[in-house]
Amino acid sequence: MASLSSLNSICIDPACFIKYQDDVKISKPKKLCVRASVASSAPQSVQFEDFKARKFEKFRIGVLGASGYTGSEIIRLLANHPNFRITLMTADRKAGQSIGSVFPHLVKQDLPDMVAVKDADFSNVDAVFCCLPHGTTQEIIKGLPSSLKIVDLSADFRLQDIGEYEEWYGQPHKAQELQKEAVYGLTEISRDEIQGARLIANPGCYPTSIQLPLIPLIKANLIEVKNIIIDSKSGVSGAGRGAKEANLYTEIAEGIHSYGVTRHRHVPEIEQGLSEAAKSKVTVSFTPHLMPMSRGMQSTIYVEMAPGASTEDLYQHLSNFYEKEEFVVLLKKNEIPHTRHVRGSNYCLMSVFPDRIPGRAIIISVIDNLVKGASGQALQNLNLMMGIPENTGLLSVPLFP
Amino acid sequence: MASLSSLNSICIDPACFIKYQDDVKISKPKKLCVRASVASSAPQSVQFEDFKARKFEKFRIGVLGASGYTGSEIIRLLANHPNFRITLMTADRKAGQSIGSVFPHLVKQDLPDMVAVKDADFSNVDAVFCCLPHGTTQEIIKGLPSSLKIVDLSADFRLQDIGEYEEWYGQPHKAQELQKEAVYGLTEISRDEIQGARLIANPGCYPTSIQLPLIPLIKANLIEVKNIIIDSKSGVSGAGRGAKEANLYTEIAEGIHSYGVTRHRHVPEIEQGLSEAAKSKVTVSFTPHLMPMSRGMQSTIYVEMAPGASTEDLYQHLSNFYEKEEFVVLLKKNEIPHTRHVRGSNYCLMSVFPDRIPGRAIIISVIDNLVKGASGQALQNLNLMMGIPENTGLLSVPLFP
Amino acid sequence: MASLSSLNSICIDPACFIKYQDDVKISKPKKLCVRASVASSAPQSVQFEDFKARKFEKFRIGVLGASGYTGSEIIRLLANHPNFRITLMTADRKAGQSIGSVFPHLVKQDLPDMVAVKDADFSNVDAVFCCLPHGTTQEIIKGLPSSLKIVDLSADFRLQDIGEYEEWYGQPHKAQELQKEAVYGLTEISRDEIQGARLIANPGCYPTSIQLPLIPLIKANLIEVKNIIIDSKSGVSGAGRGAKEANLYTEIAEGIHSYGVTRHRHVPEIEQGLSEAAKSKVTVSFTPHLMPMSRGMQSTIYVEMAPGASTEDLYQHLSNFYEKEEFVVLLKKNEIPHTRHVRGSNYCLMSVFPDRIPGRAIIISVIDNLVKGASGQALQNLNLMMGIPENTGLLSVPLFP
Amino acid sequence: MASLSSLNSICIDPACFIKYQDDVKISKPKKLCVRASVASSAPQSVQFEDFKARKFEKFRIGVLGASGYTGSEIIRLLANHPNFRITLMTADRKAGQSIGSVFPHLVKQDLPDMVAVKDADFSNVDAVFCCLPHGTTQEIIKGLPSSLKIVDLSADFRLQDIGEYEEWYGQPHKAQELQKEAVYGLTEISRDEIQGARLIANPGCYPTSIQLPLIPLIKANLIEVKNIIIDSKSGVSGAGRGAKEANLYTEIAEGIHSYGVTRHRHVPEIEQGLSEAAKSKVTVSFTPHLMPMSRGMQSTIYVEMAPGASTEDLYQHLSNFYEKEEFVVLLKKNEIPHTRHVRGSNYCLMSVFPDRIPGRAIIISVIDNLVKGASGQALQNLNLMMGIPENTGLLSVPLFP
Repeated sequence: MASLSSLNSICIDPACFIKYQDDVKISKPKKLCVRASVASSAPQSVQFEDFKARKFEKFRIGVLGASGYTGSEIIRLLANHPNFRITLMTADRKAGQSIGSVFPHLVKQDLPDMVAVKDADFSNVDAVFCCLPHGTTQEIIKGLPSSLKIVDLSADFRLQDIGEYEEWYGQPHKAQELQKEAVYGLTEISRDEIQGARLIANPGCYPTSIQLPLIPLIKANLIEVKNIIIDSKSGVSGAGRGAKEANLYTEIAEGIHSYGVTRHRHVPEIEQGLSEAAKSKVTVSFTPHLMPMSRGMQSTIYVEMAPGASTEDLYQHLSNFYEKEEFVVLLKKNEIPHTRHVRGSNYCLMSVFPDRIPGRAIIISVIDNLVKGASGQALQNLNLMMGIPENTGLLSVPLFP
Repeated sequence: MASLSSLNSICIDPACFIKYQDDVKISKPKKLCVRASVASSAPQSVQFEDFKARKFEKFRIGVLGASGYTGSEIIRLLANHPNFRITLMTADRKAGQSIGSVFPHLVKQDLPDMVAVKDADFSNVDAVFCCLPHGTTQEIIKGLPSSLKIVDLSADFRLQDIGEYEEWYGQPHKAQELQKEAVYGLTEISRDEIQGARLIANPGCYPTSIQLPLIPLIKANLIEVKNIIIDSKSGVSGAGRGAKEANLYTEIAEGIHSYGVTRHRHVPEIEQGLSEAAKSKVTVSFTPHLMPMSRGMQSTIYVEMAPGASTEDLYQHLSNFYEKEEFVVLLKKNEIPHTRHVRGSNYCLMSVFPDRIPGRAIIISVIDNLVKGASGQALQNLNLMMGIPENTGLLSVPLFP
Repeated sequence: MASLSSLNSICIDPACFIKYQDDVKISKPKKLCVRASVASSAPQSVQFEDFKARKFEKFRIGVLGASGYTGSEIIRLLANHPNFRITLMTADRKAGQSIGSVFPHLVKQDLPDMVAVKDADFSNVDAVFCCLPHGTTQEIIKGLPSSLKIVDLSADFRLQDIGEYEEWYGQPHKAQELQKEAVYGLTEISRDEIQGARLIANPGCYPTSIQLPLIPLIKANLIEVKNIIIDSKSGVSGAGRGAKEANLYTEIAEGIHSYGVTRHRHVPEIEQGLSEAAKSKVTVSFTPHLMPMSRGMQSTIYVEMAPGASTEDLYQHLSNFYEKEEFVVLLKKNEIPHTRHVRGSNYCLMSVFPDRIPGRAIIISVIDNLVKGASGQALQNLNLMMGIPENTGLLSVPLFP
Repeated sequence: MASLSSLNSICIDPACFIKYQDDVKISKPKKLCVRASVASSAPQSVQFEDFKARKFEKFRIGVLGASGYTGSEIIRLLANHPNFRITLMTADRKAGQSIGSVFPHLVKQDLPDMVAVKDADFSNVDAVFCCLPHGTTQEIIKGLPSSLKIVDLSADFRLQDIGEYEEWYGQPHKAQELQKEAVYGLTEISRDEIQGARLIANPGCYPTSIQLPLIPLIKANLIEVKNIIIDSKSGVSGAGRGAKEANLYTEIAEGIHSYGVTRHRHVPEIEQGLSEAAKSKVTVSFTPHLMPMSRGMQSTIYVEMAPGASTEDLYQHLSNFYEKEEFVVLLKKNEIPHTRHVRGSNYCLMSVFPDRIPGRAIIISVIDNLVKGASGQALQNLNLMMGIPENTGLLSVPLFP
C-alpha cells in the first residue's frame, strides 16, 4: 500500500493534509494512487489538484436513498474513509430524520440529517452514490449537475440496449443520452474505462458473482458459451428494507426456495456481459435462490469446457488473471469458498472443480451481496474515478463468526 | 391407548381387515391394508394373523441407534402411531439413559431406557428401524433374528454393486448375502417390492429428492440422461448429532457453502437409480450445499429434454404419475416449492419450469431431509411391510412458521 | 387416552363409529368428555348429545381470521382432529382464495375457500375460533349467533375491567355485556368454568407462560406478591404476519432486543390473574424481549419467597399441582427447560431454582407461543367446551431439531 | 504494507508521538493521537522509547491461542492497525498451519504460521494477547519474559481473591504473585491503572455488560446493592470453537434456554466489581441465557433505586459519566438498545427505564461479546498500555444487517 493513502486514513484536520500535498495542478488526476499492482508510477491527477485547491479537504459525497440497505452500507464504508466525507443524504420518506434514528447502528456517525431529494443542494457535493429504486433513478440522475461524478447502484443504466431495458423493466428508458455515457462498473474487468467515467452503472450482485469468473474464461475461449447453468443463492438483504410479508423473519428463517425462475431481472445484465466477452449472443440458465441469511451470495456455475481445455487450464487462467487483484481471490485447489468468509468485506472468493461428467467443470464464487455486490464495488469504483487508491476504505476483514 | 380402537382408527371397519386377508397362505402376509390406490387384491398376511393372535396389540418396534436425529425422528413419528409401539431402543454410548435425558423434547414419551446393542433382546420385537452409522450396520443387521423386518436407514445396503460400495465407503461389504435380499425403499417407485421385503435399504435424503422427479421422466424417455446437473441444498441435521467443529452454530449460521463437490457418497446411489430407470449407465453432476437451517432439502435439477419433448410433457407426465400419491405433490404451474412448506412432514413438493435455454427444463423438488428423506419414508416403508395403511402416522401437517 | 377418541381419529364414515360404540357399550359418555384426572363430576353435555344426534358427525368449526399465524395454526391442529372439521374460514383481504395459496404448507388440506367475514354463513357452524386483531373483534363476536361456542384468541375479552381495557387499548369496549359472560381460558387453572362457557377469552402467550407457574404459588402463599420481576423472551411469530419493516428477516436475525418496556399490553392481563390469585392488587415488573426465532417463549421469573418458604416447597407444590396434567410438566430438579423442546407442541415445561440471594427463587417456564400460547390452548379449551377429551388433537410431539 | 507509512497513517507526524507524551501544546497532534478526555498525563513508557529506537516500526504482537474465536477476533482487529503487527501466533493443536487454513475468512492476511506455545520465540515480541483457556493460562503467563506487556483474555487473573478462584474454578491458583500485579481491565472504569499496567486481566463479556452501567450508579449511591437481578442473554460464540454437541447448529437454532443458573463462573467477577464499587459485599442474582445468534450480548438489569433517587437521576448520572467516552453510549430516553446495532464493533449501548413497580428501574446494556466483551476491549487496553490512542483500530462501524 502506498504510504500517502495510509497517511490520509485518519487525518482529521485539513491543515495536516497540506504538508505533503503542496501544489499540484492537473486536470485528469484519475491515476493518482491506484492499486499498487497497477499503479506503479501513477502520475498525480487533475482531480487531485482540485482537491488540493480546496485546501485538501475530503471529497464531498452525497448519498441518494440513504435509508435503504445499500445506502447504509455506503455510510458504513465511508465512516473511516480518509478522502471522502458525506455532506448530503436524501431519503424522501425519512426527510428530516437523523441517520441514527433510521439506522441505530449508525448512531455514532456525525452526519447531516436526511432531506428529500427534491430539496437537496448539490452545490457542495463532488460525487454521489445513487441508491434509489430502479425506475425512479433515471430522471433524478438526469437532473443532477453535470459536474458530479455518479455511481448508480440501481439497474437503470446497466443495460446498453434501451429496448431490452424496456422489455425487462416494463417502462421506456427516460435518460437515453445518459445511457450512452454510462460505464458498466465491474471493476476488475473495466478498470480503465471506470477511471475516466463520470457515470457508473454499478453491477448487480448476481451479475458480479457470475461475470467475475466467467468473463476471463470466455474471453480466453476456455469454456463453451452454450448451456451455461448458473444456480445462485442470495441472502435476504438483496431484497431491500421494504416491508413485505414474504421477507418477514417468520417467512424466511429455516427454509429456502427458488424465485424468479428464468425471469430474474439480472438475466439480461448477465447475458450482456457474457455476450460481450464472447462476441456473440449468450443465453444462460439462471436460477436464483433465497437463503435464510442476511448477507452473502454464492453462484455455483456448471459449464462445458472448450474442446481440449481442462479444469487445470481454467484454474491457471483465473489464477493469472486475478493474481494481482486485491479483492478477487482464487482459492487453493480443493478449497471451497463459503459466503460467511467474505461477510462484510469486498472480497470475491472463487474456485474451480472438475465435474464427474467428463468435459465439464464447476465454478463457485462467493461475495457479500451488499459489499462487492453493491456498495463496496461502488466505492471501489468511486475511488478509481476520484483518483485515489482503489482499495481505500475497503480493507476491513470479513466478520466471522 | 386401547389397542382395538387404535387399530380401528386407521382401518375404519374391522371387516375391511378380513376382506383382503382372505385366502392367503402364508407365511408372510405383508399386504394387509394398503393405500387404496395400489392395494388392489392385497393378500392376507401371516404377520397380521399373529397380530390378531396377540389380540390386536400393536407391533413391537426396535429402534437401533436411538440417540441420533433419525432415531429421535422415528420416535417422534411413532408416538401416536396406532399400530406400532417401541419396545426396544439401543444407543451404545447412552446405554442406561432415558430418552428424555438424551432428547428432552421427548420427555413425555413413555419408553424403555436405552440399552447397548449387544445387550438388546430381540425376542420381543417384530421389526426394527436401524439408525446406525454407515459401516457398522452390516454386521449388526447380519446378527439379527431372521424373523425381524428391518428398515435400515444407513447407506450400507443401498448399493447393489458390492464393488461400488467398497470404492465409495473405503471398506469391503460385510454382509453380501443380505445385500442381495435388500430392497431399495423409494416407496412411490418400488412399492410392490417393498411390501414383500424383509430388509429395506432406506434411500438417502438427496437420492430421494432427486429420484422422485427424475425416475418417471427417464422411464418415459422425456429427458436426456446425459448432462443432468443437480444442485442440491440441505439443512444441517443431515450431518447428524456428532460433535464437529464444522457444524457448530457459529460455523453454520448466516452463511452457505458447497461441500463434497463431485465426491459426495450419495452419487453412486443416485446414479444407480437413474441408470436402472434409463437401462444404461448414467453419470450425473451433483453438488450438495449446506444451508443455515436445521431441516429441509431442495434439489434444483437442470435437464435437457428429449427431442420433441416440452416442459408441458414433463409436467403432465409427473402429474399423472403422482396423481394418486399421498406424499408426492406436483404443484400448480408456476408455483415454487419451499422447503419450509414441508418441514416436519413426509411430503415431497415438486414443480417443472421451462428454462431460458431452448430444449432445457428446470425441475425443483423439496423434502424434509429427516422425514421423507429418512425416518418418514422409513415408516412409510414399514407400514407397507407390516400390511397397514402406508400413510399411518404420517399425516401431520408441516410446521410453519 | 380413552378409546373413543382414538377411534375417531381417522374415521371417515359415520357408520363405523356406531359399530365400535356398539361393541364398547359406552355407559359413561361423560368420562369420554373430560380428562379423567380432573373430570370429577363433569355433567354430560348437551353438545355431546347433539353430536350423537347428528350420527357422530364431527362438529363444524369456523375459523375467523384464517390468514394469520394463529389461524393457520388452528388449521394445522385440526387437520387430524377426530371430532372437529373446518367448514368456514374467513379472511377479508384474502377472500376468495384457497388456504393453499395463502399458506402453501397447507396445500394438502381439503378446506373451503376463504370468505369475507361479512359474507360468512354461520348457520352450519357449531363453534368458532376467532383469530382477528384486537379492537375489531368485539363487534364481530357481538354479531355472531348466540348458539355458537366461541374461543376468542384476541385480547378483546381478557380484561374484566372495562376501564382497564380502554386505558390499555385506547378505545372504549364495544361489547360490555359479552365481557361479563366471557371466561378467561387458562385451561389448567379454570377448567371447570371453561367446560360450561360459551365465550372464552383465550389467554395471551406471555400471560400463559407467567400465570401457569405463578398462580398456584401465589394461591399457596409461597411467594411474595411484591417485586415479582418477569423477564420474558418471545419468538417473532407472536408479532403476526403483517408486513412491518421491524420484523423483516434482516432486522431480526442474529440479534435481540427488549421492546414495550413496562408498557406491553399483556401487563394488565398478567396483573389481573395474579391479583385474583393473591386477592390483592399485584403490580409486576414485566419486560418482553424479541428473539431471533419463529416460535417459542420463555419467561424467567424472579421472586421473593414467603417467609419460611424454600425452593423445595415451591417445587413440591408445583409438582403436586400439575402432577396429573397432560400439558404442564415440571422438570426434574436442575433440569432447564428449552423453548426448542416444546416447538410445535402444547406443552409447558417449567422448573424452579434457588437464587444466590437468600430468600429468592428463579422460576423458568417455556411454551410454544403459537400453541400453548395461542391456538393449542384455544383447542384445548374448545375440546372441553364441546365435551370431548381435552387433549384431542394436541398430542403431537415437539419438532426437534 | 510499509511500516513507516502505516504508522503515519494514524499519527501523521512521527513527532506527534513524542510531542504528546511530552505534554506538548501542539494543538493538532494532541487531538489526533489521544482521546482528549482521558489522555491527561500519560507517562512516557519504556516501551515507547524502544519503539522509537526501532525507528517507528510497529509494535510486535503475539497472539497466544490464535485458533479460537477471541484469537481470530484479535487478528481481525489488528489487520489494519497502524501501530501493531502480529509476529507470533500460537495454537498447539494447529501448530504448523497457516491462519487461512484455520480461519478461511483470514485468508488474505499475511501472517506467520502458527506454532505450539512451547516452541514460541518471545524475543521478538513486544506484547501478547493471551487467548488461552481458563486454567492453563496462569503457568504459561508465568513463563513469559517479564518485559512483555500482556493482556490476558482468560479468567485466570480476574479474581483478586485466590480462594475465590479456587472455589469457582476447582483448582488452586498457580501464579499468585502475578495475580497481585494484574490490573482488571474494564477500560472506562480503570483507565489510569491500565495505562501503567504490565498484565491486564481482561474482563469477561457478561461482567463488562453489567459493570459498565452498574459501577457508576453504585458509586454514586443511586441504587441499592441488594436484590440486583440480572438477566443476561448471550450469542453462541461466547462458548468458543470447541466441538460440543450442545453447540451444534441443530441444537441452538430457533430456540433459547437459560444455563448455569446461579452458578455461572462470571458471578464472582461481577460481585467483585460491584462490591468494590459499593465498598461492601454485594450478592447478585445472575441468570445467563443462550441465544440463537453468533454474536451479541444483552444484560437486562432490574434494580431498586436508592431512597429519593429517580430514573432521571440514574439517566443523568450515566449521561455525565460516559459523556466523553468513545465506546460507551447512553441512548436517548426511550430508545432501546439492540445487540445487532453493535455487531462487530467495540460499542456498548445502554439505556435506563422506569419500572412499573415504584422505586425500581430497568437498565439495559448491549455489547458484541467478542469485541467489547473480549478482543476489542483487550485491544483498547493494549492501546492504552502502549501509549497510543485508545480507539486505534477500533472505529469500524457495526455490521448491519
